Amino acid sequence: MADLHEYKESLSENLMQVIALLEEYGFEEGQSQSHDYSRLQHKLDTLHPADVADILEALPLDQRLQVWELVKAERDGDILLEVSDAVRQSLIADMDSHELLAAAEQLDTDELADLAPDLPKDVLQELLYSLDAQNRARLQSALSYSEDTVGAIMDFDIVTIREDVTLEVALRYMRRIGSLPDHTDKLFVVDRDDILRGVLPLTKLVVSDLDATVTDVMADDAVTFHPEDIADEAAKAFERYDLVTAPVVDANNKLVGRITVDAVMDYIREETESDMLSLAGLREEEDFFASIWKSVQNRWAWLAINLVTALVASRVIGVFEGSIEKIVALAALMPIVAGIGGNSGNQTTTMIVRGLALGQVASHNMHSLITKELGVALLNGLIWGGVLAIIAYALYGNYQLGLVMMAAMTLNLMLAAMMGVVIPLYMNKFGRDPAVGSSVLITAVTDSGGFLIFLGLATIFLL
Amino acid sequence: MADLHEYKESLSENLMQVIALLEEYGFEEGQSQSHDYSRLQHKLDTLHPADVADILEALPLDQRLQVWELVKAERDGDILLEVSDAVRQSLIADMDSHELLAAAEQLDTDELADLAPDLPKDVLQELLYSLDAQNRARLQSALSYSEDTVGAIMDFDIVTIREDVTLEVALRYMRRIGSLPDHTDKLFVVDRDDILRGVLPLTKLVVSDLDATVTDVMADDAVTFHPEDIADEAAKAFERYDLVTAPVVDANNKLVGRITVDAVMDYIREETESDMLSLAGLREEEDFFASIWKSVQNRWAWLAINLVTALVASRVIGVFEGSIEKIVALAALMPIVAGIGGNSGNQTTTMIVRGLALGQVASHNMHSLITKELGVALLNGLIWGGVLAIIAYALYGNYQLGLVMMAAMTLNLMLAAMMGVVIPLYMNKFGRDPAVGSSVLITAVTDSGGFLIFLGLATIFLL
Repeated sequence: MADLHEYKESLSENLMQVIALLEEYGFEEGQSQSHDYSRLQHKLDTLHPADVADILEALPLDQRLQVWELVKAERDGDILLEVSDAVRQSLIADMDSHELLAAAEQLDTDELADLAPDLPKDVLQELLYSLDAQNRARLQSALSYSEDTVGAIMDFDIVTIREDVTLEVALRYMRRIGSLPDHTDKLFVVDRDDILRGVLPLTKLVVSDLDATVTDVMADDAVTFHPEDIADEAAKAFERYDLVTAPVVDANNKLVGRITVDAVMDYIREETESDMLSLAGLREEEDFFASIWKSVQNRWAWLAINLVTALVASRVIGVFEGSIEKIVALAALMPIVAGIGGNSGNQTTTMIVRGLALGQVASHNMHSLITKELGVALLNGLIWGGVLAIIAYALYGNYQLGLVMMAAMTLNLMLAAMMGVVIPLYMNKFGRDPAVGSSVLITAVTDSGGFLIFLGLATIFLL
Repeated sequence: MADLHEYKESLSENLMQVIALLEEYGFEEGQSQSHDYSRLQHKLDTLHPADVADILEALPLDQRLQVWELVKAERDGDILLEVSDAVRQSLIADMDSHELLAAAEQLDTDELADLAPDLPKDVLQELLYSLDAQNRARLQSALSYSEDTVGAIMDFDIVTIREDVTLEVALRYMRRIGSLPDHTDKLFVVDRDDILRGVLPLTKLVVSDLDATVTDVMADDAVTFHPEDIADEAAKAFERYDLVTAPVVDANNKLVGRITVDAVMDYIREETESDMLSLAGLREEEDFFASIWKSVQNRWAWLAINLVTALVASRVIGVFEGSIEKIVALAALMPIVAGIGGNSGNQTTTMIVRGLALGQVASHNMHSLITKELGVALLNGLIWGGVLAIIAYALYGNYQLGLVMMAAMTLNLMLAAMMGVVIPLYMNKFGRDPAVGSSVLITAVTDSGGFLIFLGLATIFLL
């Protein structure tokens, strides 16, 4: 039996071994046919597709393609499913139609649906022709659902049974099939029109009286999904009700597929990663070895937005150039007020975004949340503003400057608190993802606002 | 059958209904006994513990406790497990020892272990006395593992079987037990000393020949875990190898428990949330209705760190006060250089942190990553720096100022790129979580660095 340590160590070790073998062979393209690649090939054959995928992602393009050619053709499909989108494109670009079709043939319909958007149009056409009617219909319908719906993550590995048979008959039927799909934790009970009547968990099947009928034992209150349901909501239901698989039915309650917990976990992982990337302004997962130009394209939109907000803040400062000329200390102190405001606002927003995701924040408690955040801001402003006032006095020997600093800090923190609650709530109300855009907006407001408040107060009270 | 829509709608609807009922009753403490709470009580009884937990989290303290008192005592334990740490503390503070013991008695040993750290010492002692020897030993060992290990997320709902029996006997044994724990997808095959010999998936049990023995059918290459394994690695193994349950064994391969996919999903969700909170500088999940003072404590460390980095940046500006006095435009333009540098550096860091988490970034490709990021930074610097140069010229009619702007921008983006790769790699090397601290460090470097580069170049070339 293999324990976790062996697996974990093997991950980075595998990568090191592959790199060592590649280096031994030398990288030069021309020589590639003259070498004996059997050791590397053997190594790759022993690895799980997910592990090969990891190695491919960690290699620069030329080495990546070298390794890719050594992977057995019948494993291509599984590995293409595991790599990130960007790396998948680099691998597909290196394959001809024949190789792509061969890889696709190894896959189930739901897996094909994941791969299809990256395939060249002619390969996809040919693939559709090669499928039987049922699978073609399934693939076409799977492709018709958008990425964030249940339809896009469901599969078709459903085992069904009629409600009027006894468990003895059911078990005999199971033994005749000879094998069940991965993750099968329940059979789907349907009538002759494929209408879902209930579910029969295997844990019930194996403990119940053999003479009982399926109806006696099945659960008829299972959570069901529709293909057009939002995948994110389905994922929450899986977590909340601890599901392993769940049936997917159409509007007439006809069974069309199932969702499994591993598809849900993959979906959650991808969503979390894409949120993290969006937060930092990366449009999508980047291939580490993509060209510089591709990376620039992936990142430019965010930098452009920040340039605009920075320019606005800069113009706010520009208005007060006269004041800064007279008291140059203002220039050194103003970024502190703006910066702490941004940090504090982002703390508030992060809390609110989490509350929105859990359904705990809504209009009914917006008022009390704002009141509370304003209280926190006031207290923080007096504490940290007080510290800053002392530092400003120590540095510049001007107690009035210190008082302005403290007042500006407090007001900017209160502005940040207010905006930190209001911005994510309104983004959510207008159907935008508050996790992604709120941070830029908050920072824009607290930067410009911080400069305006500090320089404005200074102009009024110090000049 | 209940579909997803009904569940989703019911979540916010339930909350609204509870609030409406509470408002009807009125909040005044004194009156609380004089009302007929049966409608609200009935409503709560029909809800899943996770749904009740959500409602409790969304209510201010007084209403929360009012609802909490109406929850049936035998459901207290399940609900305490579902609420966030902060809210759990507020509920436990409201319960006496007797109520707490009654709630704890409803729970399994692994669930008790989750609850135990929040229980008062005397209650925990009494609880330990009330358990039988096996469960007391289990609870004590579960409590001895730190939060981020397999030992802390495993449970003890294991069903074992001997390897030499036939499947017919195995099935008869199952029917005698009468029920299997949730999530049972496999039986654990052990010898008479509880040493794990393999696993028998239910999907195999129900399709295989009844005369076959367990040995014939069981898998002997199952992934196993040790209680002291890092939970994060176990979660990755679950995702990678699509597991539903997995055995946990001690150093002698003796079966001690199991991990289930729902525990893994809960762990992943908690980790992701705690990362998100840490990123924004919140120490832990906050109760929305915690006191202002508690919130200030939860957030102060981050603000203090940012105050220090902002002060350093401020002193860098202070050095150049003479230059700013002569060209006051510098004060308005300098935050742009610093700000865009911070954004760009965080983009790089986010990519690297992701690569580290996937094991794709390490010393062997640090060099090529830096080279690539420097290339991206150079290109971005010339593009955005060029745009800024034109804007600066348009605003201040000084083309030299524009050139300094462009040069400073490019240099600061390159500094950001370099630090964006190096900081997370070194944090990782020294055992710190790069996802959390990198962002502060990057921003500190690009702020101070940006001011230094821009004001320095301006002092050299413009004065």
